[in-house]
Amino acid sequence: MGINFKKLSLNRCIAGTLAIYLIYAMFSKYSYSPTYESDVTYVEATDLSKMSSLRFSLEDMIRLKNSVSMELRDLELKRRKILDELTTLTKKVNETRAEILKVQVEKEKVYKSLEQAKVMRLEAMEKNTPELAPPLHIVPQYDKESKYIFDKSASQCRLDYCFDFSQCPLTEELKVFLYPVAERAFVDTLMWQKALESSGFITKNPEEACLYFVVNLNKDLTKLAHWRGDGRNHVVIDLNNKSLSSMSRAIYARQYSSSYRKNYDIVLPFTKVSSDILSLPPLSPARRKYLLSFQGEVKSQSPEEQIVISVLKKLQLSTTDDKFLIHFKCINNVLSAEEEEYALCGTYQSREEILKESTFSLILSPQDFKITSTKSVQQRLYESLKFGAIPVILGYIDIPFQNEIDWSRAAIIMPKARATEVHYLLRTISDADVLSLRRFGRIIWDKYFKTAETVVATMLSALRDTLRLFPSPLEETPSLSVFNSTFNPLKTDPPPSDEEIDEYLGPIEPPLASPKFVRNYTYTTMNSYERWNVMFEPFHLFQNTPFDPVVPTEARFVGSSNGFRPVNGGAGGAGKEFSEVIGGNRPREQFTVVMLAYERDQVMIASLGRLNEVPYLNKVIVVWNSRQPPAEDLQWPDIGVPIVVVKTEKNSLNNRFLPFDEIETEAILSVDDDVHLRHDEIVFGFRVWREQRDRIVGFPGRFHAWDPLYGGWHYNSNYSCELSMVLTGAAFFHKYYSYLYTYAMPQEIREKVDEYMNCEDLAMNFLVSHYTRQPPVKVTNRWTFRCPGCPVTLSEDETHFEERHKCMNFFTQVYGYMPLLNTQFRVDSVLSKTRIPHDKQKCFKYV
Amino acid sequence: MGINFKKLSLNRCIAGTLAIYLIYAMFSKYSYSPTYESDVTYVEATDLSKMSSLRFSLEDMIRLKNSVSMELRDLELKRRKILDELTTLTKKVNETRAEILKVQVEKEKVYKSLEQAKVMRLEAMEKNTPELAPPLHIVPQYDKESKYIFDKSASQCRLDYCFDFSQCPLTEELKVFLYPVAERAFVDTLMWQKALESSGFITKNPEEACLYFVVNLNKDLTKLAHWRGDGRNHVVIDLNNKSLSSMSRAIYARQYSSSYRKNYDIVLPFTKVSSDILSLPPLSPARRKYLLSFQGEVKSQSPEEQIVISVLKKLQLSTTDDKFLIHFKCINNVLSAEEEEYALCGTYQSREEILKESTFSLILSPQDFKITSTKSVQQRLYESLKFGAIPVILGYIDIPFQNEIDWSRAAIIMPKARATEVHYLLRTISDADVLSLRRFGRIIWDKYFKTAETVVATMLSALRDTLRLFPSPLEETPSLSVFNSTFNPLKTDPPPSDEEIDEYLGPIEPPLASPKFVRNYTYTTMNSYERWNVMFEPFHLFQNTPFDPVVPTEARFVGSSNGFRPVNGGAGGAGKEFSEVIGGNRPREQFTVVMLAYERDQVMIASLGRLNEVPYLNKVIVVWNSRQPPAEDLQWPDIGVPIVVVKTEKNSLNNRFLPFDEIETEAILSVDDDVHLRHDEIVFGFRVWREQRDRIVGFPGRFHAWDPLYGGWHYNSNYSCELSMVLTGAAFFHKYYSYLYTYAMPQEIREKVDEYMNCEDLAMNFLVSHYTRQPPVKVTNRWTFRCPGCPVTLSEDETHFEERHKCMNFFTQVYGYMPLLNTQFRVDSVLSKTRIPHDKQKCFKYV
Repeated sequence: MGINFKKLSLNRCIAGTLAIYLIYAMFSKYSYSPTYESDVTYVEATDLSKMSSLRFSLEDMIRLKNSVSMELRDLELKRRKILDELTTLTKKVNETRAEILKVQVEKEKVYKSLEQAKVMRLEAMEKNTPELAPPLHIVPQYDKESKYIFDKSASQCRLDYCFDFSQCPLTEELKVFLYPVAERAFVDTLMWQKALESSGFITKNPEEACLYFVVNLNKDLTKLAHWRGDGRNHVVIDLNNKSLSSMSRAIYARQYSSSYRKNYDIVLPFTKVSSDILSLPPLSPARRKYLLSFQGEVKSQSPEEQIVISVLKKLQLSTTDDKFLIHFKCINNVLSAEEEEYALCGTYQSREEILKESTFSLILSPQDFKITSTKSVQQRLYESLKFGAIPVILGYIDIPFQNEIDWSRAAIIMPKARATEVHYLLRTISDADVLSLRRFGRIIWDKYFKTAETVVATMLSALRDTLRLFPSPLEETPSLSVFNSTFNPLKTDPPPSDEEIDEYLGPIEPPLASPKFVRNYTYTTMNSYERWNVMFEPFHLFQNTPFDPVVPTEARFVGSSNGFRPVNGGAGGAGKEFSEVIGGNRPREQFTVVMLAYERDQVMIASLGRLNEVPYLNKVIVVWNSRQPPAEDLQWPDIGVPIVVVKTEKNSLNNRFLPFDEIETEAILSVDDDVHLRHDEIVFGFRVWREQRDRIVGFPGRFHAWDPLYGGWHYNSNYSCELSMVLTGAAFFHKYYSYLYTYAMPQEIREKVDEYMNCEDLAMNFLVSHYTRQPPVKVTNRWTFRCPGCPVTLSEDETHFEERHKCMNFFTQVYGYMPLLNTQFRVDSVLSKTRIPHDKQKCFKYV
Repeated sequence: MGINFKKLSLNRCIAGTLAIYLIYAMFSKYSYSPTYESDVTYVEATDLSKMSSLRFSLEDMIRLKNSVSMELRDLELKRRKILDELTTLTKKVNETRAEILKVQVEKEKVYKSLEQAKVMRLEAMEKNTPELAPPLHIVPQYDKESKYIFDKSASQCRLDYCFDFSQCPLTEELKVFLYPVAERAFVDTLMWQKALESSGFITKNPEEACLYFVVNLNKDLTKLAHWRGDGRNHVVIDLNNKSLSSMSRAIYARQYSSSYRKNYDIVLPFTKVSSDILSLPPLSPARRKYLLSFQGEVKSQSPEEQIVISVLKKLQLSTTDDKFLIHFKCINNVLSAEEEEYALCGTYQSREEILKESTFSLILSPQDFKITSTKSVQQRLYESLKFGAIPVILGYIDIPFQNEIDWSRAAIIMPKARATEVHYLLRTISDADVLSLRRFGRIIWDKYFKTAETVVATMLSALRDTLRLFPSPLEETPSLSVFNSTFNPLKTDPPPSDEEIDEYLGPIEPPLASPKFVRNYTYTTMNSYERWNVMFEPFHLFQNTPFDPVVPTEARFVGSSNGFRPVNGGAGGAGKEFSEVIGGNRPREQFTVVMLAYERDQVMIASLGRLNEVPYLNKVIVVWNSRQPPAEDLQWPDIGVPIVVVKTEKNSLNNRFLPFDEIETEAILSVDDDVHLRHDEIVFGFRVWREQRDRIVGFPGRFHAWDPLYGGWHYNSNYSCELSMVLTGAAFFHKYYSYLYTYAMPQEIREKVDEYMNCEDLAMNFLVSHYTRQPPVKVTNRWTFRCPGCPVTLSEDETHFEERHKCMNFFTQVYGYMPLLNTQFRVDSVLSKTRIPHDKQKCFKYV
């Protein structure tokens, strides 16, 4: 029994103690009243003065003695009562133990029948699977003999009647056959050919291909080996600037065109072989020297175009304090261009300089309204996005990937007739919107346009989406055991817990993997907009994402109850009812602990031992970052769930975020080997994460501080009322972010982490805030989480902090802006510190 | 001075007190040790037994006396020290008061110069405004004499060269001229004509119109008064099922067509004159009797179509447990249809019955791939969405508003070639996705298709978006004062505060309205996807929305510092630095209190008085719900901000959510007249709301409980660990939701609120969760917020609860599902209850 003060706020109780003592002393003097136990009265400052007159006399003493004796008698009575109670409770404990044994046997049985049921379900499912056949062959068969040539309505080809779906079944990945090119081809041809070759979609077998790619420069397409008379399923990267008039069923990808077939042909972006993201200008300041810039020359001007040009020229004469740079005559070099289009001026470097000083960059459509794309238009778009000059597109232009990318988030698009209104309109755009437009432009440039390889990946993903084929998933990291297959690590009972054992935190259940790939089709289609414009990850399929939908609450009781564990069967409640089940808006699930271990075996083993019987824990992955395998005599605690010790290729802090195949849950609790989290903290953190699956939810709060004197960012770990990071030494996050960290985050960041052997936790915070534009969530009132008595880690080191400052500024440069955002609150359980009636129970005792 | 226990947890201190007493007694017996003050030791259960041997002797008494005397001497010393301190402090207070006076004078000065600065800024802005001219007249002038008739390339009209923008300047609202129709026209003609007439966009003056609408049935269009030879800027609602071959610059809106000009012509949906949302089936259960249903008949079948039909027919023979209803021959009635399309079967009622039992509903494109829309296709789409059968569209169909609505979120769309894969694919769709698809379909049906009026509003909004014109804002409610213009309400000093006066919560600043309409253009374009598919409010412009973007944190220090108040100049910090400024991710702002008052004048006046000097408070709006004006002798406290008492038309609880024009801030703190919130609670709540602007953030938590016995929802106000509502008797929300509540929320709900005089707070929670799919945010640890001693309100009444149960179930019926979601956490300030060093300060003392 015993009153445990550990969890009470010490300060308060000291204050309380002093006060009580004063009261005691006062009452002792005047007349002893036993009521003070049940009622705390207020001590006012004026009462202090009364105290000065206190003098003890013997009578006082006797009275005091009597009252104290009475008090002690009371206490003795109480003591007896407590002893009685103890006896009863001990009996109960024994009974319960017996019951537990019984229940455990029962559990085994249920467990086994569960296995049975699973097998049966599998069987039922197998039987229940619909018959599947390849798509129909609706496009007319190609007849070699009759030399059938397609032309009818090719000018209005649509996928549904021009494309042969029978070569592209839903259940298979996209496969592309690529025609070879001459070894001594033009530079551009080689660039695209090489990018296609390394796309990862190429098959050598033309029979199993869904698409046939050809990089073409004045070739006779009809002679291609698999053209089949009409070029069905062919994609022609057409680098001729003048488009060929001959149409076919082939999909043309072009920069110059007057005849894109909507939702069929592809607008080919301008791109480069390689590009360095560190050379890009930062997003801020929002306003640059020029509000709008343009340099271009057109050979002959139509009367309508002359009106537009004269309006735009006048902008430079504006009486406002906005600056314009509008040149319809190149000062130096003029790049070659078609008759109807505005030729580029200067060199790549001279244009870069101007664009870096421009808030907006004007892009004019060709004079001839029938020409909807040219090479220089595409190049202007590429350069504007790259250098953060927000494109203002006047006139109609076919923009690349317009079905996929929401261009209104990166550019201002208006008809030429509104040239008179451009200035007014650009002025109305707030700094926040300027920065949003620029940020979006920079991201899509990076993800979809940067290099030929990027463009090819984008093009293939867009095509695959249109064909409704699923992307392939990113590779999981194989969890190779650090032990030989023959070696059996020693096991031991976990040390006795120093936890509150009297708090029930949730059921210990058999392992439950999160279902995966259940949304293959719907993720590809329903979430198309988000995949391309919010997640910026249309290239891959994910096991799960933090954005998967929930069922409405009534569905859990009407037809979709599977996996749900509503609190008290849906009636809700506090305390016991709440602890018994996971509740919430999603089906029950578990989490995986990923612990980074590096040559502190005893610290690690102790940390593992503390995870004994944590509810909802699925598995522990220990990332073994040392070259030395674990000592053979190391005793691994048996904590009720598997502990998988994973070998790593090299000692890298990036290893902690690898998407190991052994991680079978969506939730990952990432911990350092010396972190001490209580079970209630873990369970509460997990419950909170389940509601905020797209954020980092965890324990140690940090923030990014601006240096008001010298500019730049500092890493700050002080107590603070605003925070912007939660360190992954003790935090939950979604496995989705392991993939992003490993595959989608710029390589420069992972390299910096390896260079410093530091900052991986900052990198993860930057990554998540970059994608979500949300701060992390700090849970529980503790600020530090090191195990008491553990050896001091590198994080106390001075250079450690210096490196972290540098990381912050480097990461900011890589993203072009500071992705972290502040939050001013912290999260506790609903009834924490709430005064509730004595017969009610809280959600948790201490969080 | 005095130690204030109010804020300490009472239970704990009683426990603590008992323990301290025991320790005291023990030490008294054996040897008195004064160290107990600074160090609390643990009392174990075994110590109790020692106590039984305690016997007081006289020596003990004397020793006790001595030790107590010593203690009292100590106390006396302390008392003197405290008195000294008091004197110093009093001096300081007086000095500070003097300083405050000085500062206030200074403030006045600054205030005045601020006014001056504002005026100057206005002047500067006026001078700085760019010249604005109407859009250019690029389309060739119409020459009456030459009877110019447009035909060239009309078949590929695009807005940028077929539309005359000069009639539609950006600065004006969309204006539509509507040609009259004959009074005895066909029913359909009249339906569209009437809907257009009541659209709110109509101008009688054809000269100022941007668009000309004509509802046409075999009319000679070229004879229209404003046709100008080519029908420029005309929209023809073409109800002929066979499309006219003659093309022009007019935009055609049609149900049957083979020749929609992409991004130009309009796909006209099927619709009805009126529709009752209460007759719609609920979203749940996800799975209905039939996985897929189809009834339709086509007159003659092409060989390709025969293959498709035979594959689809086979679905019925599936060996899985999925049920299909696939009829290619109508059982009873066949509706008239074109040769190439699948005619509808049965009656509206018979189709309704089948659709209500279908999870998915098949829609087949016409056989002739050139015909991309027919009346029956559009009718199938309308009926499927209405009755919650998710459309599965096989073959290419032009779907209405495809540039605006993300149809992949409401329907499965595939080429006919994939007929073989339909079953496999539908089976892979999870319950959560089925319900998401159905929910989205139901919402877009309700918002964009329900009736002819809805369709006209949608069509005009889509056109307006395409032309880049801004929508017009929703009407604000005029805040008519309850007082005569001649009457001056009595003023009084607010009562002395019972607040902690020693906590500094933030600066008292001059009123600061939130900037509004700063995103007119960017909101219309950049947020187009969200407006149509997430907010479902493309019809109107909003002053602000909860989704407006933030600038990245570095921008606040690089160029965009305006309005930002970073903590400690960006260096961050706790305690004092934090209290001084609002910090966060957004510019500084204030909030408006909206208090609902009903015939409890003294309670209300007391509540108003408690708002004296609340930091960040902009204004108080008292919604005067009584027929009686306030008593003339009522004394209104002068709390430093204006108190606007607003007259209402009738005593309705819906009045509390009216978007009054006097509300000049984005944040509204809605309070009942008897609610007692402390200043620190208010300021903290406001800070949290600033981060979660799309949610209800507030104080009293409630939840929706499922009745496991009888089904259906109960309202529950018990202490609970999961909550799903925060009552608007004490909560922050965005003014945006006042508009939605008043204008966008189904009328049925407001009527129910008036019928019961109850549930408006539930309605607001349903509304916000419906739009955001997020639960509210509960802040601070208190559960009840009534002012102590206030008369008991109607909410204690039994029928009050009964009504609330009924409301929950009625609202669920209206939305078709239960929008509320659970949350298992609560929000406190970052360092609340955190042990920090004594020299550090927390963010708030008690929250």
